[in-house]
Amino acid sequence: MQHAIEKAEVLIEALPYIRKFAGSTVVVKYGGSAMIDEHMKESVIQDIVLMKRIGFNPVVVHGGGNAISDQLKKVGKESKFISGLRITDQETAQIAEMVLSGSIGKALVQALQNHGIQAVSINGKDGDTLVSRKKLSSGIDLGFVGEVVKVNTELLTSLMQHDFVPVVAPVGTDAQGNTYNINADYAASAIAGALKAQKLVFLTDVEGILMDKDNPDSIIRRLSVTQAENFISDGTIAGGMIPKAKCCMDGINQGVESVHILDGRLPHSLLLEIFTNDGCGTMMTR
Amino acid sequence: MQHAIEKAEVLIEALPYIRKFAGSTVVVKYGGSAMIDEHMKESVIQDIVLMKRIGFNPVVVHGGGNAISDQLKKVGKESKFISGLRITDQETAQIAEMVLSGSIGKALVQALQNHGIQAVSINGKDGDTLVSRKKLSSGIDLGFVGEVVKVNTELLTSLMQHDFVPVVAPVGTDAQGNTYNINADYAASAIAGALKAQKLVFLTDVEGILMDKDNPDSIIRRLSVTQAENFISDGTIAGGMIPKAKCCMDGINQGVESVHILDGRLPHSLLLEIFTNDGCGTMMTR
Amino acid sequence: MQHAIEKAEVLIEALPYIRKFAGSTVVVKYGGSAMIDEHMKESVIQDIVLMKRIGFNPVVVHGGGNAISDQLKKVGKESKFISGLRITDQETAQIAEMVLSGSIGKALVQALQNHGIQAVSINGKDGDTLVSRKKLSSGIDLGFVGEVVKVNTELLTSLMQHDFVPVVAPVGTDAQGNTYNINADYAASAIAGALKAQKLVFLTDVEGILMDKDNPDSIIRRLSVTQAENFISDGTIAGGMIPKAKCCMDGINQGVESVHILDGRLPHSLLLEIFTNDGCGTMMTR
Amino acid sequence: MQHAIEKAEVLIEALPYIRKFAGSTVVVKYGGSAMIDEHMKESVIQDIVLMKRIGFNPVVVHGGGNAISDQLKKVGKESKFISGLRITDQETAQIAEMVLSGSIGKALVQALQNHGIQAVSINGKDGDTLVSRKKLSSGIDLGFVGEVVKVNTELLTSLMQHDFVPVVAPVGTDAQGNTYNINADYAASAIAGALKAQKLVFLTDVEGILMDKDNPDSIIRRLSVTQAENFISDGTIAGGMIPKAKCCMDGINQGVESVHILDGRLPHSLLLEIFTNDGCGTMMTR
Amino acid sequence: MQHAIEKAEVLIEALPYIRKFAGSTVVVKYGGSAMIDEHMKESVIQDIVLMKRIGFNPVVVHGGGNAISDQLKKVGKESKFISGLRITDQETAQIAEMVLSGSIGKALVQALQNHGIQAVSINGKDGDTLVSRKKLSSGIDLGFVGEVVKVNTELLTSLMQHDFVPVVAPVGTDAQGNTYNINADYAASAIAGALKAQKLVFLTDVEGILMDKDNPDSIIRRLSVTQAENFISDGTIAGGMIPKAKCCMDGINQGVESVHILDGRLPHSLLLEIFTNDGCGTMMTR
Amino acid sequence: MQHAIEKAEVLIEALPYIRKFAGSTVVVKYGGSAMIDEHMKESVIQDIVLMKRIGFNPVVVHGGGNAISDQLKKVGKESKFISGLRITDQETAQIAEMVLSGSIGKALVQALQNHGIQAVSINGKDGDTLVSRKKLSSGIDLGFVGEVVKVNTELLTSLMQHDFVPVVAPVGTDAQGNTYNINADYAASAIAGALKAQKLVFLTDVEGILMDKDNPDSIIRRLSVTQAENFISDGTIAGGMIPKAKCCMDGINQGVESVHILDGRLPHSLLLEIFTNDGCGTMMTR
Repeated sequence: MQHAIEKAEVLIEALPYIRKFAGSTVVVKYGGSAMIDEHMKESVIQDIVLMKRIGFNPVVVHGGGNAISDQLKKVGKESKFISGLRITDQETAQIAEMVLSGSIGKALVQALQNHGIQAVSINGKDGDTLVSRKKLSSGIDLGFVGEVVKVNTELLTSLMQHDFVPVVAPVGTDAQGNTYNINADYAASAIAGALKAQKLVFLTDVEGILMDKDNPDSIIRRLSVTQAENFISDGTIAGGMIPKAKCCMDGINQGVESVHILDGRLPHSLLLEIFTNDGCGTMMTR
Repeated sequence: MQHAIEKAEVLIEALPYIRKFAGSTVVVKYGGSAMIDEHMKESVIQDIVLMKRIGFNPVVVHGGGNAISDQLKKVGKESKFISGLRITDQETAQIAEMVLSGSIGKALVQALQNHGIQAVSINGKDGDTLVSRKKLSSGIDLGFVGEVVKVNTELLTSLMQHDFVPVVAPVGTDAQGNTYNINADYAASAIAGALKAQKLVFLTDVEGILMDKDNPDSIIRRLSVTQAENFISDGTIAGGMIPKAKCCMDGINQGVESVHILDGRLPHSLLLEIFTNDGCGTMMTR
Repeated sequence: MQHAIEKAEVLIEALPYIRKFAGSTVVVKYGGSAMIDEHMKESVIQDIVLMKRIGFNPVVVHGGGNAISDQLKKVGKESKFISGLRITDQETAQIAEMVLSGSIGKALVQALQNHGIQAVSINGKDGDTLVSRKKLSSGIDLGFVGEVVKVNTELLTSLMQHDFVPVVAPVGTDAQGNTYNINADYAASAIAGALKAQKLVFLTDVEGILMDKDNPDSIIRRLSVTQAENFISDGTIAGGMIPKAKCCMDGINQGVESVHILDGRLPHSLLLEIFTNDGCGTMMTR
Repeated sequence: MQHAIEKAEVLIEALPYIRKFAGSTVVVKYGGSAMIDEHMKESVIQDIVLMKRIGFNPVVVHGGGNAISDQLKKVGKESKFISGLRITDQETAQIAEMVLSGSIGKALVQALQNHGIQAVSINGKDGDTLVSRKKLSSGIDLGFVGEVVKVNTELLTSLMQHDFVPVVAPVGTDAQGNTYNINADYAASAIAGALKAQKLVFLTDVEGILMDKDNPDSIIRRLSVTQAENFISDGTIAGGMIPKAKCCMDGINQGVESVHILDGRLPHSLLLEIFTNDGCGTMMTR
Repeated sequence: MQHAIEKAEVLIEALPYIRKFAGSTVVVKYGGSAMIDEHMKESVIQDIVLMKRIGFNPVVVHGGGNAISDQLKKVGKESKFISGLRITDQETAQIAEMVLSGSIGKALVQALQNHGIQAVSINGKDGDTLVSRKKLSSGIDLGFVGEVVKVNTELLTSLMQHDFVPVVAPVGTDAQGNTYNINADYAASAIAGALKAQKLVFLTDVEGILMDKDNPDSIIRRLSVTQAENFISDGTIAGGMIPKAKCCMDGINQGVESVHILDGRLPHSLLLEIFTNDGCGTMMTR
Repeated sequence: MQHAIEKAEVLIEALPYIRKFAGSTVVVKYGGSAMIDEHMKESVIQDIVLMKRIGFNPVVVHGGGNAISDQLKKVGKESKFISGLRITDQETAQIAEMVLSGSIGKALVQALQNHGIQAVSINGKDGDTLVSRKKLSSGIDLGFVGEVVKVNTELLTSLMQHDFVPVVAPVGTDAQGNTYNINADYAASAIAGALKAQKLVFLTDVEGILMDKDNPDSIIRRLSVTQAENFISDGTIAGGMIPKAKCCMDGINQGVESVHILDGRLPHSLLLEIFTNDGCGTMMTR
């Protein structure tokens, strides 16, 4: 009886969120540990399946985990570095495209479809989805590393409209037919912005944005873009927390309603963040 | 952390049901203690509001509680009985209609609307919804007590289509313009059948159908119509449990997918029955 | 032959009006003698049925005739007066609501449905149709007498869209859940204005607005709001004619195209007013 | 007052018919005296305009009156006869086509449009509406006189759908490109049948079908196809009344609901037939 | 093999135009030699049929060729002239209307329908398509010669929407019911403008607009309105070329995208102009 | 002038086919020489682009050319053979999938998009398009070589509906999550059958089905399934021509209207086959 009442309370807590976000587009950047550990992988897939089942429109943007390095090793390709930055030559870019689009994406599609959800794996070339250009980083030519110039959303919205979950590999192209590798966080951010997504979720290997990176209890639950700017200015957010904060700010600035940094190592963190009052991780809003 | 995992489990348990029953029509017979106790009243109203919010189509069929007797007393009307059965003369039928349609139904509408859900109270005359005739009970003329001959669903479906929750008082009419009082359980059953409702729920003052009426632990969680027939034949279901079982069988036979007998004295029993694996009360299916 | 030609002339006179008003919303305030005399009652019901049959959208707003007083008497309720004005305490308001919504409205629904037209009786609480507040009259607190603050038209238009004739009892509510009795003339005027009705018709016990209240031939056939104001200023419209004129002006000011005061004691006055060049009664336009 | 009541009675008599026939297709064969006398012409045009205004779909099939003979005379064309039957050679057929389609039809269009109704004059070649073949009459070759083999209704229904009144000249064609004159009565009958018209009306120079052709009072108001067959068999319908009866039977047999023979010399006979209980003329039904 | 490659090249040249103009409205003014020579007639009809088949919406506006003069001769009607201009009296206007609408238009309909395309012949009175007025030419009263005041496009667009090719005789009317003959070039121009046609094509007896009227090689392939104005000013376009140029300018000024002057004596000139890069004749654009 | 007439003739020949096949689904199996020679590649891409531009729905199913072997060589993978048949172990299947889906398909997408047509490259796992199982060939286990069990067409039709050209790599999966390589000819045939395609076109390295494989002039232009069966029985179709004939028969038996074997080495053979009377290559129909 006591158990029943507790159940009823969780449901009463969750139901308004289910209603509130019905039909929402949620872009999930999937990478890090949650992509390697088989148990966590299944937990993430389950959460995405449930989100789809109750009426959300999830879009998955994935990284490559260790698979790209493995394949480079197999073909005896050595990585070159300039000033400590890895250089992506044309062959590397092609191998990365093959691994991301021809292997990892297809495996995610299979995992989702095993739970009865239809999915389609594309990369940024399909439907000219990620129009890109060479990225310049402090004047160093990193080779075929690109940044997103424009997102054509027709293909993504068509797939969602027909109930397919899009699974996107962060590979782009330009009018000259070059193939570019793109940072998956930035690709997710650009896609979420172009889709005017309600939520953009980064599954990471940290608890969220921490005021003290060594103390998980120092997590910031909610903050605005302005607060984030101030925290960076005054040093509250520092070191490795800065790029994470910037990624969120980038998403908000591109029109996403809320951006979340979740701990991909916590089971069902996606579900808890969306359907409970407390949530987990950090949420940034305008 | 442990708490978070338990929450996630309740959600994972509930989500498939939310999906499964989205758009379902659920007819709730509301009466008994749940109609008298202010606290329980609010719990039932909350459950109906949540059901509507997440995409169900609830229809409420209500009884009159003590209000009809109170009003009869006020106008100095005495009840007559034949062989222990109460006789409903024309004046009594008219007073019952006034109380049900002009007072109780309107109060339910107000309670639902206080939670932001639109509702409309009708009786069986509106839109000729409950076409009725005089009910004969073992040859005794009970006066203006009727049974449903046909349910015209146009008004109910129009209201639901425009997002109004219908609140129905069990009063019917015939072609001669007579006014009949109808038993609310049977009215709910007829309405659920005509609407091809997914669920018909009776909020009662018992835990469910019990094999031993004095032992709540003897509750039957699920049973089919055939099983119910056998249980009645062999005396497992006996005494006051028989009419409850028959009411369920009646609903199933009219085309409802599942009929539930819930304990209206348990807070949020409606919610628990629909969104948890265990449910509460008794569920009958074909 | 002569008779045929006369018939043809009546038809040629009527046909353009039928065309002109097809699809029009006509709010009919039904009360007074036309509500008491059985013969007149049938004549009014016939006219409403015909209006509906040829493609108009009638909405009926009804008063309570003598039935409220009768019921008050039955329960031994005495009316209180302050400065000659009747005070409506909570119990009186509840009895009035029961009689209007649970008895008179339902009887009108039955009468219309006997002619094959579907109807639905609601009061201002259903669908939050008549949002009201306490009315103050020259500083005297009349109790639960209300005035309309806002008309939510969703329920009315949904019913009309599905070919149900709405029958409205002038009872309203506020956010605190109070029940208010509302003057039926003003309720009709507010509803007609909110629906942007083409016509608002008051069935009264006078021939129309008379320049000399004792001379039916002094009837004003057509007048504008400005003319009415002038007639009141210069005393042409005087005494009991003033509130009737004000009711019309009120309707026009709320956006109704034309407001009619008809003699409910003349058979088929509704029909004649709408379908003949001469009309009967008084018509006010902007 | 008495006058008002009479008006109300005519209206109450007419309204059900207006409702009953709303959206009906009514094919009017227009010819004879009603086509020559200017006053009657205007009366017919008025009736068609009113029918259209209140929601009927009239289709006019017209003859040529005296205009074809006049034009033949102008070009000095003499008519040939075999066994008393007029022979239509190719030149005569072409002149008839020009007069019907290029002059009379266009004048009717103008007359209707003067009353604010849009109309379009076509002949049976347009949209391949009247697929025809040479008519053989008792083995005599009458030249280019045709009978209707098939009616393609696409053009007629398209015009009606866009609120144009079709005005049809009874000229047909075959696959070899021949031009045929067709009897307007039979063309109207074929068109009404193909359109599954509710009514087919012949405006003639008689009161209707008479039992005694010299006594207008012997008019048959209503009869069935079977009755007509019997009346012809037993000689009740005789002489010039036979072809009129056969024309009606033909229409009914092709699927028209009722066929009417009216006196085109009586003002507004169309209107009276359709909107009054007594009607005028003869009506045949299945 | 060589032949196959040449075929492929023609197709590759044509396909983009087919795509580009799919769904376009093309108004074809049909007159001159192409209307008299049987072989050319068939070539024009074929081109219109093919245009319709691949998804264009052709509208044909035709002149009367020699047929009007022939008919006038038959009825012994002599033409009158003032200052060398032909006077159109009422009888002449009526005969022209009969010939254009009752004979030539119907023959074109038959020719198109022989190729399986549905067509409908109308004149400017039908659907009040060509609202006209008397044309004054340098102060001389030419009788019933009209100019277009307004084009009502409802009938034309309805016919096209239902896949009928409209064939229009240049006859107009005014509110007084007068019948006017209208110059077919100007009627075509007004219709094309009102329909916002993509193309207006004049089939003429010249190669196009020539800089030297005696040298076909001096043809101007493309020019803008401004260039045409300049060419007229500086005398490059002179003599009989001026009215042709003005007709084109008129079309462009009324909103047509491009106007073409083609040589109706060249087989399939319509097809070549539309589907090849070189085209034939002269094209004017804004 | 002569040139113009010849152009007109090619157009008149082509136009009916354009009309006839508008909206048709055409599955093109792209492989062989046409995939290796850069010039031919461009010719095929141009033909597909033009087909799409004029309203066809092309679907491309591609093989892997030499790229799979090249990649196997790079990772030092040796092929094993049993009884002369190549064995596809799991690693080989994965590499083939990566090359087909992650490299060749994406390059085709880019080539099509360079001409302004949107395309999307998928493999049989996406949207569970190619449900497969292990193929057994005369009892020899070839490893991860599959055959199509079922084609789910939802993804393909969704893409086409939104104007994306689907580019399909012949890789399939089963419920156990195995990855199978599928023969591209059979994949194309299964897809065309499931889509009820109007046409299935194989771009091959032969002229068509030859009666004498050494004599291109012995090509069979058209044949039915029955004729093909007879030709195989009587030895007219022999040797390497048999599998090609069987592939066509297979397509027809799965519901495709016509199957074409074209010479991919002939420029624009696709275009000529579809838009000229003679066509090129062999066409099989039921």
